[in-house]
Amino acid sequence: MPALKGATAPIYFGSFIVTPQVFHTTPLTFALVNLKPILPGHVLVSPRRVVPRVTDLTPAETSDLFLTVRRVGRMVERVYGATSLNIAIQDGAHAGQSVPHVHAHIIPRKAADLDHAGGMDAIYDLLDGDEGDLGKAFKNAVSTEEGDQSIEVGNGSTANSGRRSRFPVVDNDARKPRDEEDMRTEAEMLAREMENEPLD
Amino acid sequence: MPALKGATAPIYFGSFIVTPQVFHTTPLTFALVNLKPILPGHVLVSPRRVVPRVTDLTPAETSDLFLTVRRVGRMVERVYGATSLNIAIQDGAHAGQSVPHVHAHIIPRKAADLDHAGGMDAIYDLLDGDEGDLGKAFKNAVSTEEGDQSIEVGNGSTANSGRRSRFPVVDNDARKPRDEEDMRTEAEMLAREMENEPLD
Repeated sequence: MPALKGATAPIYFGSFIVTPQVFHTTPLTFALVNLKPILPGHVLVSPRRVVPRVTDLTPAETSDLFLTVRRVGRMVERVYGATSLNIAIQDGAHAGQSVPHVHAHIIPRKAADLDHAGGMDAIYDLLDGDEGDLGKAFKNAVSTEEGDQSIEVGNGSTANSGRRSRFPVVDNDARKPRDEEDMRTEAEMLAREMENEPLD
Repeated sequence: MPALKGATAPIYFGSFIVTPQVFHTTPLTFALVNLKPILPGHVLVSPRRVVPRVTDLTPAETSDLFLTVRRVGRMVERVYGATSLNIAIQDGAHAGQSVPHVHAHIIPRKAADLDHAGGMDAIYDLLDGDEGDLGKAFKNAVSTEEGDQSIEVGNGSTANSGRRSRFPVVDNDARKPRDEEDMRTEAEMLAREMENEPLD
């Protein structure tokens, strides 16, 4: 079930269907909430077309992607009471990309928000550690579901098919990954907030 | 003296004149080589207009900035024999921005390129450490020059006016910041390479 009203076709992030996590779409771009946000409001923006590298994007896709990054970034900064944003793209495997589908991380920041984790710059350790490893997080979600005899096969829904999370907790700070319902609730809230966000 | 043929007006990065470092311009965007590159080919792309935040950009500036990031990224990846790129924007002071002028870092990456520094993810420690602190690097350049009795005042050139570097070496790996001539030489090379780079 899509979080976004009017969404029809499933939306893919790499090989994963992420429709319930998606809170904003344009003809060329979509924005989704994160399975394991590093900080509140940590979201991703991707092209609709599944391509691994920024250079694989057309100029129209490039413009649309970053106009969406700008607009979504402004929205999450407002909604989560932040004052700055980290925007980061791991463009290729040797830059740390774990899902071979272009995606910009947008992470709202505020003063002293990572003092407990080692200070402002800890964001990058988190982004490149287990917390930021989207491939691992998605694969864990899938394999956990696949190992569960109660999984509904062939329901055409998502890779993470919506029960309470049994993801392994791999974070040092014991932060829990969210289940589909948590993500859908946040995505619905952010979809409403996007309606209030000026177009330019 | 500009590295880029045909450049006329001085180009500002924050309050610093960086004309000799600039290797590419569009009507709205410029790209410059870095005073203290974290890895070979680490360059910056900024809007011509000095504004601190991505949201301060117009949609036209946003599109042009990231079309330039895509094209410059492809060029430096080719020229420096890399296989991936880190693209990062510290959008605001609480995200680690040290010069209040929008700038995207583009850092070419290849397998095992940071094994000596702790592995792939060390890029972020470097970006947020002294090595990536553009504000500090530029201010050191200026204050060092100002403390030098031989400085030529009022010659209308740059903040870093072109003699052998006397920057304090603050890096653990003793990597030296470059002087203006080194940067101009690289900028001239990259300006030629940009002429070979497809527009789309």
